[in-house]
Order: sequence, then C-alpha cells, then structure tokens
Amino acid sequence: MPAIGRRLWAIAEGYIPGESTGPEPAMTSHETICMLNAGETDAQVRITLYFTDRDPVGPYRVTVPAKRTMHLRFNELQDPEPVPRDTDYASLIESDQPIVCQHTRLDSRQAELGLITTIAYSE
Amino acid sequence: MPAIGRRLWAIAEGYIPGESTGPEPAMTSHETICMLNAGETDAQVRITLYFTDRDPVGPYRVTVPAKRTMHLRFNELQDPEPVPRDTDYASLIESDQPIVCQHTRLDSRQAELGLITTIAYSE
Amino acid sequence: MPAIGRRLWAIAEGYIPGESTGPEPAMTSHETICMLNAGETDAQVRITLYFTDRDPVGPYRVTVPAKRTMHLRFNELQDPEPVPRDTDYASLIESDQPIVCQHTRLDSRQAELGLITTIAYSE
Amino acid sequence: MPAIGRRLWAIAEGYIPGESTGPEPAMTSHETICMLNAGETDAQVRITLYFTDRDPVGPYRVTVPAKRTMHLRFNELQDPEPVPRDTDYASLIESDQPIVCQHTRLDSRQAELGLITTIAYSE
Repeated sequence: MPAIGRRLWAIAEGYIPGESTGPEPAMTSHETICMLNAGETDAQVRITLYFTDRDPVGPYRVTVPAKRTMHLRFNELQDPEPVPRDTDYASLIESDQPIVCQHTRLDSRQAELGLITTIAYSE
Repeated sequence: MPAIGRRLWAIAEGYIPGESTGPEPAMTSHETICMLNAGETDAQVRITLYFTDRDPVGPYRVTVPAKRTMHLRFNELQDPEPVPRDTDYASLIESDQPIVCQHTRLDSRQAELGLITTIAYSE
Repeated sequence: MPAIGRRLWAIAEGYIPGESTGPEPAMTSHETICMLNAGETDAQVRITLYFTDRDPVGPYRVTVPAKRTMHLRFNELQDPEPVPRDTDYASLIESDQPIVCQHTRLDSRQAELGLITTIAYSE
Repeated sequence: MPAIGRRLWAIAEGYIPGESTGPEPAMTSHETICMLNAGETDAQVRITLYFTDRDPVGPYRVTVPAKRTMHLRFNELQDPEPVPRDTDYASLIESDQPIVCQHTRLDSRQAELGLITTIAYSE
C-alpha cells in the first residue's frame, strides 16, 4: 500500500455548541478530526488548540496506529484540559508520520441537523 | 480535452448510519465517492477501507470508463465484504489513470437532512 | 491586486434533484459554480459535463468579466442542452484566464435544507 | 510551533441571506472566514469583496494576532461599507504573514439549518 499524507495540518474552524438535541451520543453536537494512517508505522500525533483571546493550549497527544483510522471527537479531549463549549477555536495537528486529516462537525443545537466537512489544510 | 486528476486519493471520513428516514432509495443514508475520468482510457480503480480496530479490507475493484463519471455508493460495495454500518472508516482510492474524487454523505437518520461534501485528499 | 487562480478545474459531484420545496427561486434545488476572476482581463470559460452512461456534453460557454464573480446555476444552462434532473454528472471548467472555482449545492427535496460546498479540484 | 499557511486566499462563494430564523445571534444567518495565525508575528489582513455587476469593494482591514484565531463574520464588516444582503459576492484575503483560512456559512432562512464549510483556495 502506498504511503499517503502529510505531517502538518491545520483546521481554522472550530466550535462546539453547548447544547444538543436528539439521541445520545450519536447525535450530540461534536467536532471530529478524522485521521487516516495508511502507513506501516504508528503515528504519534500532537494537537494544539488556538483561541481568540488567550494563549494556545496543548499539546493533546494521541496515537493513530499503523493501517488504522481514528475519528477523534474534540469533545473527548481532556488532557491538558477539556475543550471549552460555545467558544471559537482552531487546531494544528502535527504527526511524526504521514497522515490524512478531515474535519467534520455535527451541529444538533436545533432539531435540524447541521453537518459539515472539509479536508484540512496541509503543507 | 485536457487530462486532469491524480492516481492516489484518500478520504479520512467515513460512516454509514444504520437508520434512514424518507423515500427509498434517493433518501437512504449513504456515502458516495464521485469519480471523474475525463481522459481517453478506462481507469481501473482499487478501493481499500481502513477501520479503527481491525485490519484494512479490500481491494474493492471498479472501472470508471473513459469520459465518464461514476458516483459510487459505499452502501453498494459487496466484494470482498459489505461495508459495516454505524462504524467509522476511511478509504484509499488508487487508480491506474488520472481521476478526480469527491466525497459526499447524505445523512437521513433524522427527518432533517444532513449532506456534506469535500474534495478528497490527493498527492 | 494579485492574480489568483488556475485555468483548469473539475467538480466530480453533480446532481440536480427534480423536486424542490420552499419559496422560488431562492429555495429551488440548485447546483452552483461560484467563479472569481480577480484579474484585469475577462475570462472566457468553457464547461463540459460528464455522465455515467453517455458521451460528454458541451462546451457551455460563459464570460466572467475582469474583477467580477459569477455564481452560475447549472439549472440555467441551456446551450447546447439543459442539464438533466435526477441524473449524476460531473463537470470540467476550462478558462483562458486564472479563476477560482467553488461548488455549492442547495438540496430542497425535503423541507429540510441540504447545503453543501467545496473548493473544486484544480491543477 | 511550526509556521503554517499562505499569504493569499480566495473564497469564490459568498451570500448573506436577508432573513433568519432561530435565536439571535448564534443562529443568525452568517458567513464566516475562520483565520488561524499560528506564527509569532501579528498578521495584517486585507479583504477585498468582488461582485457580479459592480467594482470590487475594499480593502477591509483586520489584524489576526500572533498565536490566535479569528472567526470573522462578514455580517460585521462595516468599513468601507457593510456587505449587502441577498447578493452574490466573492472574497480575496491578503495577509502579510502566513495564515490558514476556512469558510463557513450558517443559513437559517428556513427553520432547518444549512451549514457549510470548505477550506479556502490558496496559492
């Protein structure tokens, strides 16, 4: 299988609504980074969050195993601190192996579903 | 007509909800890879699926004819095995000819429609 | 103002639902190519449509004037022929000047709105 | 932290609906540019708007501080003039430092939410 991806990614959009509607947990409002590590080596990933009016927080550390995907909800990040709700943020993802990142948001503040996705920015 | 596209694409997001609402089949929850082969030669395409906690599955094989588009629903992939519902996955698309890939998801778990799209990652 | 953009773009996703809900015309289901010509010269643009099981159709010809944007609805293309409804298609956009293309779909088949966008593929 | 981003971005899609539903201001229809400045130097940003049938307007000027993100609503731009509602536009973003731009639209014209995002075009 060919190696694919980059080691540095950014997602400029980030916002977890404080309220949700619908059955838990599938329909809880959430933001997700979908990461694919198609390579042969586990990827050590560091995530840093940026805010509007305070210093960056991080790194949050996760491992994406070789030949696996991880769909990580920002809601679940706890260390060094939970991601604040109702707050604009952005994220930077650094990996020691090539990975592919995609960003998805499910917004269930209203009964009507908002669902967005985009490929992250890489260089 | 100019050749356009790449031979290697990745979609890090993937999830087929187990439930749908609305008339079948147009409104069945589905994930689609839209592929365009604008060239003069049929493209032999191999799709591999990656999961969170088990080995990759594939390749699934399809042919995108010359000067045609194919909008392939992951729901319909059967060989080597159907794509599991309610399960996170990612996909890698390899083609022997340049193609363009775009990813679309229709989420009709709730009556309200969720519809997302993004250009896939290529290199 | 700096020149920005490319001369060749592709949108692999394309589908105009045959039904709509909501007030006309803002809420009619539609697919749009948003084109930006930030340069000093009018851009002559040729659009070709690709289908699943028949030959490509086109070119459709439009001019995007210098320092203007054009948000073109596929619904409104008539020459050489209207775009069929309820049919998968893809599109190739060729311009003689650098432009930027973005793809948006409003899906109002159900009362609930589906709205998607992505940057087109360029090379 | 590594520098990441580009100095020139374009968003070809732009449209602020004149009507909204739902609680203000979170659910007011809006278009947002999410900008991330992960670098060590404040970024001076100039935004120019392009229209269908009149000359470009701008520049609008904002500063994205070092190590911060700014999620800027087009609704709030006032100088040199407010962004017209119910009008197609496109935008060009020039920065004197590398930044990452992402575009999000919340469409609440109908009770059902429309939410879109895409990475902007850069070069």
